[in-house]
Amino acid sequence: MEFTLNQIAGMLGGEVRGDGNQKINMLAKIQDAKEGQIAFLANPKYEQYIYTTHATAVIVQRDFQPKKEIQSSLVLVEDPYSSFTILLEEYHKLISFQKSGIEQPSFIGEKTTVGKNIYRGAFSYIGSNVKIGDNAKIYPHVFIGDDVMLGNNVILHPNVKLYASTKIGNNCVIHSGTVIGSDGFGFAPQEDGTYKTIPQLGNVIIEDNVTIGANTVIDCATLFGDSTIIRQGVKLDNLIQIAHNVEVGKNTVIAAQTGISGSSKVGDNCMIAGQVGIAGHLVIANNTGLGAQAGISKSIAVEGERLIGYPAFNMKEYYKAYAVFKQLPNLNHRLRELEKKVNAQAANSIETLENGQNGES
Amino acid sequence: MEFTLNQIAGMLGGEVRGDGNQKINMLAKIQDAKEGQIAFLANPKYEQYIYTTHATAVIVQRDFQPKKEIQSSLVLVEDPYSSFTILLEEYHKLISFQKSGIEQPSFIGEKTTVGKNIYRGAFSYIGSNVKIGDNAKIYPHVFIGDDVMLGNNVILHPNVKLYASTKIGNNCVIHSGTVIGSDGFGFAPQEDGTYKTIPQLGNVIIEDNVTIGANTVIDCATLFGDSTIIRQGVKLDNLIQIAHNVEVGKNTVIAAQTGISGSSKVGDNCMIAGQVGIAGHLVIANNTGLGAQAGISKSIAVEGERLIGYPAFNMKEYYKAYAVFKQLPNLNHRLRELEKKVNAQAANSIETLENGQNGES
Amino acid sequence: MEFTLNQIAGMLGGEVRGDGNQKINMLAKIQDAKEGQIAFLANPKYEQYIYTTHATAVIVQRDFQPKKEIQSSLVLVEDPYSSFTILLEEYHKLISFQKSGIEQPSFIGEKTTVGKNIYRGAFSYIGSNVKIGDNAKIYPHVFIGDDVMLGNNVILHPNVKLYASTKIGNNCVIHSGTVIGSDGFGFAPQEDGTYKTIPQLGNVIIEDNVTIGANTVIDCATLFGDSTIIRQGVKLDNLIQIAHNVEVGKNTVIAAQTGISGSSKVGDNCMIAGQVGIAGHLVIANNTGLGAQAGISKSIAVEGERLIGYPAFNMKEYYKAYAVFKQLPNLNHRLRELEKKVNAQAANSIETLENGQNGES
Repeated sequence: MEFTLNQIAGMLGGEVRGDGNQKINMLAKIQDAKEGQIAFLANPKYEQYIYTTHATAVIVQRDFQPKKEIQSSLVLVEDPYSSFTILLEEYHKLISFQKSGIEQPSFIGEKTTVGKNIYRGAFSYIGSNVKIGDNAKIYPHVFIGDDVMLGNNVILHPNVKLYASTKIGNNCVIHSGTVIGSDGFGFAPQEDGTYKTIPQLGNVIIEDNVTIGANTVIDCATLFGDSTIIRQGVKLDNLIQIAHNVEVGKNTVIAAQTGISGSSKVGDNCMIAGQVGIAGHLVIANNTGLGAQAGISKSIAVEGERLIGYPAFNMKEYYKAYAVFKQLPNLNHRLRELEKKVNAQAANSIETLENGQNGES
Repeated sequence: MEFTLNQIAGMLGGEVRGDGNQKINMLAKIQDAKEGQIAFLANPKYEQYIYTTHATAVIVQRDFQPKKEIQSSLVLVEDPYSSFTILLEEYHKLISFQKSGIEQPSFIGEKTTVGKNIYRGAFSYIGSNVKIGDNAKIYPHVFIGDDVMLGNNVILHPNVKLYASTKIGNNCVIHSGTVIGSDGFGFAPQEDGTYKTIPQLGNVIIEDNVTIGANTVIDCATLFGDSTIIRQGVKLDNLIQIAHNVEVGKNTVIAAQTGISGSSKVGDNCMIAGQVGIAGHLVIANNTGLGAQAGISKSIAVEGERLIGYPAFNMKEYYKAYAVFKQLPNLNHRLRELEKKVNAQAANSIETLENGQNGES
Repeated sequence: MEFTLNQIAGMLGGEVRGDGNQKINMLAKIQDAKEGQIAFLANPKYEQYIYTTHATAVIVQRDFQPKKEIQSSLVLVEDPYSSFTILLEEYHKLISFQKSGIEQPSFIGEKTTVGKNIYRGAFSYIGSNVKIGDNAKIYPHVFIGDDVMLGNNVILHPNVKLYASTKIGNNCVIHSGTVIGSDGFGFAPQEDGTYKTIPQLGNVIIEDNVTIGANTVIDCATLFGDSTIIRQGVKLDNLIQIAHNVEVGKNTVIAAQTGISGSSKVGDNCMIAGQVGIAGHLVIANNTGLGAQAGISKSIAVEGERLIGYPAFNMKEYYKAYAVFKQLPNLNHRLRELEKKVNAQAANSIETLENGQNGES
């Protein structure tokens, strides 16, 4: 990126104090910033740095009153922090969509159509009969199988692999090494102990605004016309396993190394931590929260529950039970002591009784 | 694929009612089918759809009696469901082995020999002194190191990586991103706290009829002449870790995200669920079943056991113990109440005794 | 490799018995060795093989006295086993750094500089403004983004992906499919239930002598100028997840499928087993040992602890508690029996008391 201070002030509805033609090519923290960079000052704790920073410009609050001389130019705004956030996002968008053109060698099949402003990195492979929307960024070593459809503004980082017939919506970002549409894990046991492969003939549908991390795998559905579906707004982390015919509901967030087995349906707006395992053919209600490493062996019907454990149950109850688990050797010891005591009392009691009887006699 | 109805009827030992020269290029469900597609009707529940389907043909039972007019042609067979399954498999084989020829650019080293009817996708890399059998399908971005051997009918999906000297049998399918033959994780601790790499010089052998999912890793054996071995008929899912010198016995099935540590030997016909961890240097008996997320820390000597837990033990016993685990706060409470009661009784009992003694006096 | 026996004897400070001009191209076990290979005899148990081996040469102890005729040449040394280890390491270094030159097609961007004796495999991609040291081995399908820096003697196996601005030190080895610098998993929840992506603008720094396995993922730090850091001498296995802003201390070893959440700092010289999960924003002390599948939910302040469990606590205590866990149904039964007994005694005791009172009357 390269902007003048005037352009940046324009984006932020701010005002420049200094030379508005100065050029900015990077954002930085006020204590680290160098020439050509812009920083911000929101928290008074950091005010000291504004007098020593090498930043070309600093974003400050409109009524900021410097106590010493400042070398940097200033951009005056209402809210420096949120202004900086806006710049961050703009910058991120810029660098994300910066690449364009076609690097060679790259491969493109027959009957494939691509939108405007596309980037096709060297060694990228696009099969036949593929449809790609505008602004797609297809990095080196990406593989796009035949009959795939991509919406607009899709970023496929280096080495993403899309098997044939995958469908991806708009504004999706997929990170390196992720595989979409590989065969579901389906095998029919035979009488001789071997397994016969069940043909996997469905596909994967990723809706709009989905982000997927690196080295994640999403298998295709088993049957013709069926799909493994990732609904709009879902965020998947790295190294996740999504099996055949799974459906992940919209705006659900799943952390790294979690696995969802075949045909399970996860609801909307769920929060699933890392290394969780969900068994097959389950239904998980909307707004469910699953703690790290939870093992889900049953459907969850009530919305908004928090679960953990192996197999998982209510999170608070799990922690209460686990607190006692840690004390189990002591509990066992107490029980044994009590058994002795009770047995002794029983003996005693018989004696007492006998004594009583004796007393009676 | 494209077949005439007559050809399909021939494959199934069936009979055509309608124009046997009609062309079929896809299989579909009866409720979704379009022109050029063939569907089947086995379950009477779906009979309604045969009167409205757009399928060019429907496979039905030989004695099927339509209640209304049907637009589609019919293929009459003994068992429509199993006939459709046969078509599915044929179709799957066809699309799996459909690709052929050499796309450019692709790389092939010296002294490498390839069989008949091979597909080498663009950007695939085949090293030197490699031997590849007939019908191999080597998709784009596949890497095959020097001295690798592949049998017949092997499918390597995009981006499979085979390190030097890997051996793969016949009829194996390996999905995208899977790495075979990477260095085993072996490091010798030094006195200064650093680690020295132990050279990893063995290889990986994959026998016949093995299927491996996406982004799985199988490390090579440590020593010259030693191999990490995946026996015939094994089915491995996605994101699995197989460490150096492991052996997986024939027809064993392992679900996603499971990890097997160095030098462990897993028996034949085992069923291992997802996210299981198996420690190093263990021996797991044939026909063992391991539940999801189980942690295996000891060898399993008896065949046919089912285990779960962390560390794992008998599955039924685990669930019984876990049922009590959930009740631990209550158990703890009951124990405390009982302690109070027993202490009170002890006090009482002394009092009683005293009373008794008093009574005596 | 190809050495004469004289050269090998020179490396080992040994002496040849036989033709010192014979050529050796491989190391092997004495029982498997073939012509052109060298083996060793250290353990007297294997002495029988030296009389039948096909090895061109065998490394033996200086004072070895053969009982029969030996076909192979001998190399006499002080310690045959450690001599063989030296050869193994030399051989490993040789094969690791054997490749050189530039295979075509390969891609290299503008303003990129590379050191001496580099290997750039076919279909490797190196972006712009990259700096690469001497002896780098960049295998096929490697992607190196813009502004990356690599030290000397770095090996990037096929398909390693380095996002822009990654920094890698000297003597690092990274295995196939590993992704370094992918976006951290950061999303800000919005009022309508959707998530906004938090731009991920930091990078990853890998220091010297780090080894990383296959299909592992290391995310970049969130903020400008921040880094996810892997300190010198760290050894990471396959399929590991390292989230944004994590720091792994020097000489720490982490086994396969472990995940470390955002912003956690792991100390020096830790040993972390497979499938461990570490929550975010924790600090783990130096020399910590974490057992397989442990779930770490709190910081660990004391050095040298061993933990396991879910959540994890002291390993010995965990195993003691778990031993009782396995007996929980029995414990529950004993408690119930005791409750009955105590209640019966209470009833009894009242009776006794009444009897006593009766006795009194």
